[in-house]
Amino acid sequence: MKIKNFSDGVKVEAFYVVKRSEVKKASNGNPYLEIQLSDGIDVVKGRRFDYSDKAIEPNSVVKVLGKYDQKFNSVQIYSLNMAEKGEYPADLFLPKCPKDVGSMWEDLLNILEQYVDDNELKGLLMLVFEKHGDDFKEAPGALAHHHAYLGGLLEHTIAVADSASKLAITYKSDLSLTVAGAILHDLGKIWEYKWDGLQFEMSDQGALLGHISLGISVISIYAKSTIKDEEKRNKLLHIIGSHHGLVEWGAIKEPMIPEAVIVAAADNLDANMFKIYAAQEDAQPGEVTKWDRTMKRHIWVKEKTKDDYAG
Amino acid sequence: MKIKNFSDGVKVEAFYVVKRSEVKKASNGNPYLEIQLSDGIDVVKGRRFDYSDKAIEPNSVVKVLGKYDQKFNSVQIYSLNMAEKGEYPADLFLPKCPKDVGSMWEDLLNILEQYVDDNELKGLLMLVFEKHGDDFKEAPGALAHHHAYLGGLLEHTIAVADSASKLAITYKSDLSLTVAGAILHDLGKIWEYKWDGLQFEMSDQGALLGHISLGISVISIYAKSTIKDEEKRNKLLHIIGSHHGLVEWGAIKEPMIPEAVIVAAADNLDANMFKIYAAQEDAQPGEVTKWDRTMKRHIWVKEKTKDDYAG
Amino acid sequence: MKIKNFSDGVKVEAFYVVKRSEVKKASNGNPYLEIQLSDGIDVVKGRRFDYSDKAIEPNSVVKVLGKYDQKFNSVQIYSLNMAEKGEYPADLFLPKCPKDVGSMWEDLLNILEQYVDDNELKGLLMLVFEKHGDDFKEAPGALAHHHAYLGGLLEHTIAVADSASKLAITYKSDLSLTVAGAILHDLGKIWEYKWDGLQFEMSDQGALLGHISLGISVISIYAKSTIKDEEKRNKLLHIIGSHHGLVEWGAIKEPMIPEAVIVAAADNLDANMFKIYAAQEDAQPGEVTKWDRTMKRHIWVKEKTKDDYAG
Amino acid sequence: MKIKNFSDGVKVEAFYVVKRSEVKKASNGNPYLEIQLSDGIDVVKGRRFDYSDKAIEPNSVVKVLGKYDQKFNSVQIYSLNMAEKGEYPADLFLPKCPKDVGSMWEDLLNILEQYVDDNELKGLLMLVFEKHGDDFKEAPGALAHHHAYLGGLLEHTIAVADSASKLAITYKSDLSLTVAGAILHDLGKIWEYKWDGLQFEMSDQGALLGHISLGISVISIYAKSTIKDEEKRNKLLHIIGSHHGLVEWGAIKEPMIPEAVIVAAADNLDANMFKIYAAQEDAQPGEVTKWDRTMKRHIWVKEKTKDDYAG
Amino acid sequence: MKIKNFSDGVKVEAFYVVKRSEVKKASNGNPYLEIQLSDGIDVVKGRRFDYSDKAIEPNSVVKVLGKYDQKFNSVQIYSLNMAEKGEYPADLFLPKCPKDVGSMWEDLLNILEQYVDDNELKGLLMLVFEKHGDDFKEAPGALAHHHAYLGGLLEHTIAVADSASKLAITYKSDLSLTVAGAILHDLGKIWEYKWDGLQFEMSDQGALLGHISLGISVISIYAKSTIKDEEKRNKLLHIIGSHHGLVEWGAIKEPMIPEAVIVAAADNLDANMFKIYAAQEDAQPGEVTKWDRTMKRHIWVKEKTKDDYAG
Amino acid sequence: MKIKNFSDGVKVEAFYVVKRSEVKKASNGNPYLEIQLSDGIDVVKGRRFDYSDKAIEPNSVVKVLGKYDQKFNSVQIYSLNMAEKGEYPADLFLPKCPKDVGSMWEDLLNILEQYVDDNELKGLLMLVFEKHGDDFKEAPGALAHHHAYLGGLLEHTIAVADSASKLAITYKSDLSLTVAGAILHDLGKIWEYKWDGLQFEMSDQGALLGHISLGISVISIYAKSTIKDEEKRNKLLHIIGSHHGLVEWGAIKEPMIPEAVIVAAADNLDANMFKIYAAQEDAQPGEVTKWDRTMKRHIWVKEKTKDDYAG
Repeated sequence: MKIKNFSDGVKVEAFYVVKRSEVKKASNGNPYLEIQLSDGIDVVKGRRFDYSDKAIEPNSVVKVLGKYDQKFNSVQIYSLNMAEKGEYPADLFLPKCPKDVGSMWEDLLNILEQYVDDNELKGLLMLVFEKHGDDFKEAPGALAHHHAYLGGLLEHTIAVADSASKLAITYKSDLSLTVAGAILHDLGKIWEYKWDGLQFEMSDQGALLGHISLGISVISIYAKSTIKDEEKRNKLLHIIGSHHGLVEWGAIKEPMIPEAVIVAAADNLDANMFKIYAAQEDAQPGEVTKWDRTMKRHIWVKEKTKDDYAG
Repeated sequence: MKIKNFSDGVKVEAFYVVKRSEVKKASNGNPYLEIQLSDGIDVVKGRRFDYSDKAIEPNSVVKVLGKYDQKFNSVQIYSLNMAEKGEYPADLFLPKCPKDVGSMWEDLLNILEQYVDDNELKGLLMLVFEKHGDDFKEAPGALAHHHAYLGGLLEHTIAVADSASKLAITYKSDLSLTVAGAILHDLGKIWEYKWDGLQFEMSDQGALLGHISLGISVISIYAKSTIKDEEKRNKLLHIIGSHHGLVEWGAIKEPMIPEAVIVAAADNLDANMFKIYAAQEDAQPGEVTKWDRTMKRHIWVKEKTKDDYAG
Repeated sequence: MKIKNFSDGVKVEAFYVVKRSEVKKASNGNPYLEIQLSDGIDVVKGRRFDYSDKAIEPNSVVKVLGKYDQKFNSVQIYSLNMAEKGEYPADLFLPKCPKDVGSMWEDLLNILEQYVDDNELKGLLMLVFEKHGDDFKEAPGALAHHHAYLGGLLEHTIAVADSASKLAITYKSDLSLTVAGAILHDLGKIWEYKWDGLQFEMSDQGALLGHISLGISVISIYAKSTIKDEEKRNKLLHIIGSHHGLVEWGAIKEPMIPEAVIVAAADNLDANMFKIYAAQEDAQPGEVTKWDRTMKRHIWVKEKTKDDYAG
Repeated sequence: MKIKNFSDGVKVEAFYVVKRSEVKKASNGNPYLEIQLSDGIDVVKGRRFDYSDKAIEPNSVVKVLGKYDQKFNSVQIYSLNMAEKGEYPADLFLPKCPKDVGSMWEDLLNILEQYVDDNELKGLLMLVFEKHGDDFKEAPGALAHHHAYLGGLLEHTIAVADSASKLAITYKSDLSLTVAGAILHDLGKIWEYKWDGLQFEMSDQGALLGHISLGISVISIYAKSTIKDEEKRNKLLHIIGSHHGLVEWGAIKEPMIPEAVIVAAADNLDANMFKIYAAQEDAQPGEVTKWDRTMKRHIWVKEKTKDDYAG
Repeated sequence: MKIKNFSDGVKVEAFYVVKRSEVKKASNGNPYLEIQLSDGIDVVKGRRFDYSDKAIEPNSVVKVLGKYDQKFNSVQIYSLNMAEKGEYPADLFLPKCPKDVGSMWEDLLNILEQYVDDNELKGLLMLVFEKHGDDFKEAPGALAHHHAYLGGLLEHTIAVADSASKLAITYKSDLSLTVAGAILHDLGKIWEYKWDGLQFEMSDQGALLGHISLGISVISIYAKSTIKDEEKRNKLLHIIGSHHGLVEWGAIKEPMIPEAVIVAAADNLDANMFKIYAAQEDAQPGEVTKWDRTMKRHIWVKEKTKDDYAG
Repeated sequence: MKIKNFSDGVKVEAFYVVKRSEVKKASNGNPYLEIQLSDGIDVVKGRRFDYSDKAIEPNSVVKVLGKYDQKFNSVQIYSLNMAEKGEYPADLFLPKCPKDVGSMWEDLLNILEQYVDDNELKGLLMLVFEKHGDDFKEAPGALAHHHAYLGGLLEHTIAVADSASKLAITYKSDLSLTVAGAILHDLGKIWEYKWDGLQFEMSDQGALLGHISLGISVISIYAKSTIKDEEKRNKLLHIIGSHHGLVEWGAIKEPMIPEAVIVAAADNLDANMFKIYAAQEDAQPGEVTKWDRTMKRHIWVKEKTKDDYAG
């Protein structure tokens, strides 16, 4: 049961990640353990009385048996055992995309079918999907702020490709190239992030090289074997390299071709739309504005909810 | 005949704007007039021999009779007369949108019909069109850089409204509000610019107040008589006030609602796409890159042309 | 009695805003309430023993009867009752300007009399005072940082108008226009803020449109009926629109006329002087410097006090 | 006679600085000299026929005898001789403050008398005037943009001290300290600039150290002998060191005491007012706006003139 | 014994600085003191039972007798007495450079001997060492972030002079001048900081004037008596004044001569290298990256330790 | 003969690039050609009389026979013929490094031998030299501002590797890794630039992808076959990717390891030292300061010359 669904007196029996713990002295003079338990989303306080052991290391996983007491907003713990990897599902504590990965993957294939007519680009995409499709389906879209859940990369990619295809048609840019660039723009996140632990983390090469550079290095190899036209290859890599829009935002070059301008605009828009809907979801009823640190502004909230996020 | 179409020996008989003029002494000791003539787009040198008058004031309009000599890339002038307002069409020297204003206006009405279901917003738009439709059709979109021609405001507005409508559907924002905001976002340019002279200019109130503030002041008055829901009014004005995206780019507030995020993105994209296609058009054959001062980057040019600008 | 005046053993009987509360278990096993009480300025901890109810919602108003115990820096609460609006003065928890509103209002009228000779501008100001004088007297000058109390807008306006009048005389700018602009520069704050709750808040239109835009929209309407000279109207609105000095600080245009340069300088100076005197007041005896987040610097403090703020 | 006063056929007999010169071949095959002559303010073209010498070095001073011909906007030169230092007044080509230096100096002494009550500060100022009064009267206020003429430092200093004294009274800051700081804030310019050549230049130590650092070094020595109170000395030097307002504008510290905030505001205001009135003066009749590179904005100009600069 | 070396049951008998203290009520109803004790590096919690006094002022020094209990990570205090200045060494709580001051001082003299051939510069340095050598040996290099310990100024100065000497040889800049500038670049910190209290603090003149301005004022006086060549003096002072590299980082001028470019580069490098090694030292085993607020980036950490800091 | 060595009456017989040309009418009524000729460094005016052809396209190469006339600072042309590729050396108009390429290459190999002990890194470098050594020797270091001549990349690389090796020793960073990173940091410029025309140009992939991204893509492939240790590979690529120091200066990541901090510092220093010595070389005798657009400052110049550039 998720912490946010706890009600008074409910029986608690689940795995949690320990956030903090401290041994304190109770009124009867006996030591007890005060602990903070996380289910990956929310945190709740717990107490284990008559506890003679030492405090538990943060980020340990424990199996807890106990009862939730609403007045003290705390779990009274009857039994507390350390859990090893393997006792619980590997992604138990990682947030997941609310949408179904299987159907999102089909959406992506449909976009590819519908818009990428160029055979070389199509060949490149199929090769990438064959080699890295599984990771593409799993990877988070970010460590925080937006699409920070399993499947988030896929969800974000579809949204960007969808908008980019429409804008490419409006502005008569090269449709195959625009959509192929949109599909691959964040591919490097597969190697930038790790999602095999208790939380999302940067990989070593992610920290040192970043997803833009990692994506370009990998895709440039595949592109050499699938795309003969050097100009097309350079343009595709340019779309990936420039999708952050400005050098000071991490672009290796600022968008210099129509296709890159479109993908950068669609990427920026999707991140902002995600954040604005998320800010609305987090707002308390009646709240008017909320400061968003990454957008550096308040979001105006009245009645919309996250269900409306269509990205 | 436009200057760019001059061929050797062609007879020249037209109105021009004087850019510079100087009285010089010829090899025979007689004074002659050297003059630069503009047709609003290009400039050509001219010479009037045996000229005993003083130099001509810049920005005078003259009627020229002469012959073009290709070797010296110069017009030999036989007769040169000052022209008064009224002798030539008022907009003779102002650049015009390559698209037909009448059919653009129908496009805008179609967008209104198709996407703005909300009756109050539709009523506001109809009122604005009734009062200011003629200016809306004529106004330039900017003084320079993009859409800087008669009809440019209309062309730009349609492009923004078109993209915004698509993105509103993708992201399930309020469609009526998004499109109404897109249609009105630059309305203030009607009062910011003047287009009754030899070139586009800022008006006094444009210089002192800017189009965002001018637009909000006018629309807030019309909105009070057509829209009862205060929240809807505030949101519409917020879209207009925030469409420059960032305060440092002139927004009075940064976009705080989904509809404003979309309009600001569509506006920014259209300006950039215009500039990128224009940079391509200006590039010489074989040129690879070109520095664009307003986009602060080079544009990469191979084969595209301005005909592709679809905004 | 204000919290800052509590002494050991003093009887406490007053209304407070609850900031946080938690039900804890006492040494005798009984639950007790630990609560943080605010009088709008300071916060003090309180304890209500043998408390069997649930925790109290933050931002509730309670009536407290108890005794202050200095050793534990805490109020021992004997009785604690929820208070409804109406039981206590509406502005009980809102900070007030240390100066008398009535005499400040007279000061403002005197400034108007003394410096605004232009009849049209005087007419506009009288109309604004008639329509919005009551709000002008009440509104805070900001939500935080400076003049964040009832009457703060008035106090700040007088200070700016006073400095601006002197500088206008020194620099021979248009005195009527400078002072009228100074008096109206922040008028939009009347609609930007709300002061009918437990603390100052942004209104919806304040959040979406900001006080500069709100001020311009309102004043432009009044100005049309009182000022015939369009240039004078535009200049007045320009002073209001440019008083933040730089676009990146929220100005819609940067000051382009002498009168606007003066009002922007006087406004900036008054905010800084307020903050510097406030920083001195907050400093502990013997403290040398203090970092001020909004001025991005330390303030050097030796002996001055807030009583010296003359704005 | 100043170049701007030339009329057709007038006899020209004066010293000029050569800006450019080129030997050209006339229609009769003979070489002639084409030359640009400056009187320190304006530039006019000249021609010396049958000239068999080589071109003249730029920045040479020449004595010219000739006649002005309006049609060709050029001086026909009859005699042209190189002039040595000593033949013409040393400051002939340097612009001068339109105000009388003697009466400005009395204004400064009056300000000192009226506002600087503190005996130590008065003693310091008298010592500085005694040692450096002559330079203080001569030095320009800047190399360009504002107060860039002999006497400009004095004119600017008086304006800043005047405004600062008024603001100090309004804000009840330490009046002696504020005004003493205002009088000394730009003293270092005496050593930063050189005004013994054909134009204003940076000195070596001005280029390497700047006027703020130069001023502090000199004044700190005088202050040690005249001011016993270390805190007073530090505050005075802080006013000088912080008067550029922000570190990125060259302040060694940002203003941390009320007196420094006031002097920085008065200094900034005076520079801006000078530029805004100068922009108005330079504007052609009927011109509406003009881009000012140092203020990064257009100035709005209708009827005001530079005569109004009261600094 | 340092707090980081505490083991379970160890006897504690030492002076500590009180960080926070609060009187609480124990389970037996008696008040007890909960206190946070600092040894200048780490902090540990302590409890004094049956404590009837009031809480202790933060930043008091106390002499503690007690026992460390690992389970509660707390010191059980048997006796607690206020300590007066003089009872404990003056620098007891100030961090010290891990290197020996005496041998660092010899290193500095060796650098002087080896690289500063110019007799005037050598004379200036010897004079500075004679007058201010003792402070030079003691002063911290900063209040925080890097070299924030006694002897830190000396350690940093040696590192900068060492790198600067090598780069001066590579780039053939004036070796004497480069190294003399490096040795003196931060001299002003002697007057900017105070290290006679419980922690490092800014002095009054440090807060108001900063170490660059203080250094220049002092050194310019000594330089006048030891260096005849004005150009050499100006260059030396320029190196000191420009060593922060950019005006926005506090330089009074940006480096304009080769020697100043080198010293600024060496200074910046040493600060960054210190921080990067310190970040590595602070990182937990297995940690990959760590955000560094002053360098505005993550540091990548695998196996290196602070022992490698060679500055 | 180079244009800068022309003396009066000297015979001119060489290839030049045409910069501009115009057909003018001489005093005898006959057309003549006025032309600007460049030898890749300087430009001189030329005249070809009795010229009945049309003007010559800019950037054509011509063979000129004529005579230099000092009084008119112009070449009198007797014969003028278009030159085809092959008639003149391919790099005739490209500037060359003043140092010998062969001996620079040996310097680089020596640095490799002396400092890169790690066998894997040495293997990688040898492989790169084998594959791309010829281009490495020829490539310019930049298109403008610094090292903008054939051999410039090599010269700059040696300077950076030399400084980096010394700093690595001082700071005990990994010497092999630091120096290998320094040698490879700008390798991508081989593909970023083209030097087979009349002037240096960006290649297509250089314009679209930049040298940092191009370098990483190529080196990551070679590194996979020569370096087994993934951490070493990532660190090496990180040095290359971060060598611009800040993201806003084009770094893909800011330096996160000691070796990258050193290489970025050495790279920045070498560019600045080059520019400062070049500014000194360009200065006229007696000139004191000169504004440098890329360093955003004046350079202080007295007696040094470019011969001192040791990079």
